[in-house]
Amino acid sequence: MDGMIEFCRSPPACPCRAGGGIGHNGAAMRLSKLIAPDLERILETEPGQLEEALSEVHAEDVAQVVCELPPERATEFTRALPAQMAADVLERLPEDLRVHIVEALGPATSAELVSEMDPDDRADLVAELPDKVREELLAEVEQQEPGIAQDVRALAAYDEESAGGLMTTEFLALWPELTVSEAIDEVRVATRERDLETIYYLYVVAYDKLVGVLSLRDLILSDGEKRLATVMTEQVVSVPADTDQEEVANTIARYDLSALPVVDQHGKMLGVVTVDDVVDVVIDEATEDAHMMAAVVPIEESYLQTGFVDFLRNRITWLIVLFAGELLTASVMDAYEAQLSAVMDLMIFVPLIISSGGNSGSQSSSLIIRALALGELAPRDWPKVLGRELAMGLALGLVLGLVGFARAFAGHGINNPAAMGMTVALAIVGVVTMGTLVGSLMPLAIKRAGLDPAVSSTPFVASLVDVFGLIVYFSIARMVFALAL
Amino acid sequence: MDGMIEFCRSPPACPCRAGGGIGHNGAAMRLSKLIAPDLERILETEPGQLEEALSEVHAEDVAQVVCELPPERATEFTRALPAQMAADVLERLPEDLRVHIVEALGPATSAELVSEMDPDDRADLVAELPDKVREELLAEVEQQEPGIAQDVRALAAYDEESAGGLMTTEFLALWPELTVSEAIDEVRVATRERDLETIYYLYVVAYDKLVGVLSLRDLILSDGEKRLATVMTEQVVSVPADTDQEEVANTIARYDLSALPVVDQHGKMLGVVTVDDVVDVVIDEATEDAHMMAAVVPIEESYLQTGFVDFLRNRITWLIVLFAGELLTASVMDAYEAQLSAVMDLMIFVPLIISSGGNSGSQSSSLIIRALALGELAPRDWPKVLGRELAMGLALGLVLGLVGFARAFAGHGINNPAAMGMTVALAIVGVVTMGTLVGSLMPLAIKRAGLDPAVSSTPFVASLVDVFGLIVYFSIARMVFALAL
Repeated sequence: MDGMIEFCRSPPACPCRAGGGIGHNGAAMRLSKLIAPDLERILETEPGQLEEALSEVHAEDVAQVVCELPPERATEFTRALPAQMAADVLERLPEDLRVHIVEALGPATSAELVSEMDPDDRADLVAELPDKVREELLAEVEQQEPGIAQDVRALAAYDEESAGGLMTTEFLALWPELTVSEAIDEVRVATRERDLETIYYLYVVAYDKLVGVLSLRDLILSDGEKRLATVMTEQVVSVPADTDQEEVANTIARYDLSALPVVDQHGKMLGVVTVDDVVDVVIDEATEDAHMMAAVVPIEESYLQTGFVDFLRNRITWLIVLFAGELLTASVMDAYEAQLSAVMDLMIFVPLIISSGGNSGSQSSSLIIRALALGELAPRDWPKVLGRELAMGLALGLVLGLVGFARAFAGHGINNPAAMGMTVALAIVGVVTMGTLVGSLMPLAIKRAGLDPAVSSTPFVASLVDVFGLIVYFSIARMVFALAL
Repeated sequence: MDGMIEFCRSPPACPCRAGGGIGHNGAAMRLSKLIAPDLERILETEPGQLEEALSEVHAEDVAQVVCELPPERATEFTRALPAQMAADVLERLPEDLRVHIVEALGPATSAELVSEMDPDDRADLVAELPDKVREELLAEVEQQEPGIAQDVRALAAYDEESAGGLMTTEFLALWPELTVSEAIDEVRVATRERDLETIYYLYVVAYDKLVGVLSLRDLILSDGEKRLATVMTEQVVSVPADTDQEEVANTIARYDLSALPVVDQHGKMLGVVTVDDVVDVVIDEATEDAHMMAAVVPIEESYLQTGFVDFLRNRITWLIVLFAGELLTASVMDAYEAQLSAVMDLMIFVPLIISSGGNSGSQSSSLIIRALALGELAPRDWPKVLGRELAMGLALGLVLGLVGFARAFAGHGINNPAAMGMTVALAIVGVVTMGTLVGSLMPLAIKRAGLDPAVSSTPFVASLVDVFGLIVYFSIARMVFALAL
């Protein structure tokens, strides 16, 4: 029995991470570390026993063992597994290892495993393969199980990060004319004969169009003679196939759904996205955004699994761009050098002032980026955002400006405390307001341009504000000191 | 029929957000905006018709309408709803409005609604109430449905952000001696008589201890005469009640579960956390981290719903702390003023150098914070992290240092290009390495201290690095120029 594995599969997670393992009766342990030596021994001495040895182990833990093996051993191991377990394990391996194993197993064996996979996971795997390997595999699949290859091609046409890319095409469609008793029989037969990912919601379809939904519980509780048309809920929450995965996740979260039907532009039902797939989406999107917002090109594997060179590449790219932008601060400083030597005290407050702008800017940018990700805001809301952030910037700037004034006015050894205090205070108001405006409007503009607003990272906003903040500071200083002298 | 609502409820989300609404047959529309006037009219002229009018509307959309009403109207509206719908709506309202409505409805009516709620949502709601209101309500609940009040008190004892706080106590427990046919009958009866949140996994319990799990599908496909003990999977993934919600979410995601049993220290089964609750947890945690990492005290409501004063408070708190820290840069600059006036060119590169440290530091801190949130890293991994980030800091610093050297060496008007170039290059290597070390080790230390590592925000790391970065820069300058002169 492997009920859990059969019951809810999902797109490949990356299993090679620290921690993990089954917590049996509450005791968490690193199962993969414990079972790895045993499994390796069985594989070497009596590979026929592997099936029995694994009957009580979750595919996730087996995958963890496999992905810590060298690629050749991993292939051998996968080959020795029963087909269903091998398919479940394959789904969970990192992309490069998975591709290696499929190639090494050859089209005949791989086709068998691929046929055991869920439609959505199958399509993802096939999409990763080199063209030649993919065509050989699909030809073999077509021979073994006609129809699957076509299904794979149809699913592969959708963007991987859209509702179409997430959905499974294995769902149970019932007709509005069926009685409740007939529908229960249909569910029973379908559960036996087909590999359905979800039977908690049953969808009612007329001429291919999605017209209603009901839960298994509704079915069990309803009068057996009634027609589905009278029992079903007609208001079905559904999304078009090209809906972005983030919006899919937000819809499922908002309505607390365990599955969400996907339709085409005519309302024809195409498939179902299940909530367990969405948990992975939400986690991955949050990780991607966290990395992007700190100006790191998002990494695919876990922190400890990512190679040093990959990491270096993903970090240095943005650092060089930011550094190039930040070089402008040297030019600005250079341009104002005469002014700085005339009033040496100005220099003292440079880091304080530019950092104030950077900090208020990163607050705004992450608030807006997150609100966009949650669907709370859209680019068309910019006038509201502009109004709020302008007021916020002025308010924050005034508070910080007052503190700045006190420091500059009271600082010992300051030559012209009043002028210096005024300059610092005004500059802080200006720079903080600039920070909130740049930080909030930039993500909206980037989203409007069709890009991911998270590229408007904290360091990116801070660099922009640094350069312009210096110009604001020195311009204010020029005016104040001209008046003061 | 409201199958979806009955079938999977979850803790209160905040419904007052932009967008949303049911996308029927793929067409997204703001349903709440469309239905609000109709519902208000019905409420005024023929409140008895409300039940029929709402039979096809999702509780989420009704909640959206309710939370845009003034509190008195919202109370009136909730009172007019059928009890089950009112309970579903109440779960979805923001905390303050919910508390207002419960108080305004009085203990008798509120007790009726509370009894209709899921155990986990009920416990959350009751926990929010003022002491006096809570006791009156629980006394009334005890009268209407004995047992519920005790259950609420038991659930309220768990931390809201732990497995115990997330779980529902309404689950179906079967015995290992039951046959498959008997178990199917149990499921049928339980579905009719009790308000179960999930029947997709069935848990097998012996002497209160969780000993196995099987899916409804396993049950349907198994031989009716077999005993559950022979059909069930004995390796059950479970967590102790005090497990943090983030780890609960990671466990569910890793094993692709749709429900996770919660046990006490003796393996006694206490309840079940369902995957739809976990989607909300994952989204909320990601939002909280995104805000904290940008030095904003996390906001509870959506961006547009949060009041200006609340926002100001949540932003200014950290800005003042950061500003106070950043004031130290002025003191450092002041201390080195003599050196700066001797070598005016040093000044030009101040913003460039401190921002390099800040940027590399924010990269490290967000990578580590995210890895901690996903359970990929633990504080005990600090030696590995130290090694990697030290090497990374040196590598990043060398690349950026070379560019910095070129700029300083080639900059026109620089008095001592070689010494200036050396100073800038060495300072960048030092500051960038300091950034990666502070950014990576700080979150680990904070986590070790039992706090949320996300407080080690980007601006916080940047401020620290600014202050020490200036000291590094000026110290290097002193040495280089002493050698050069």
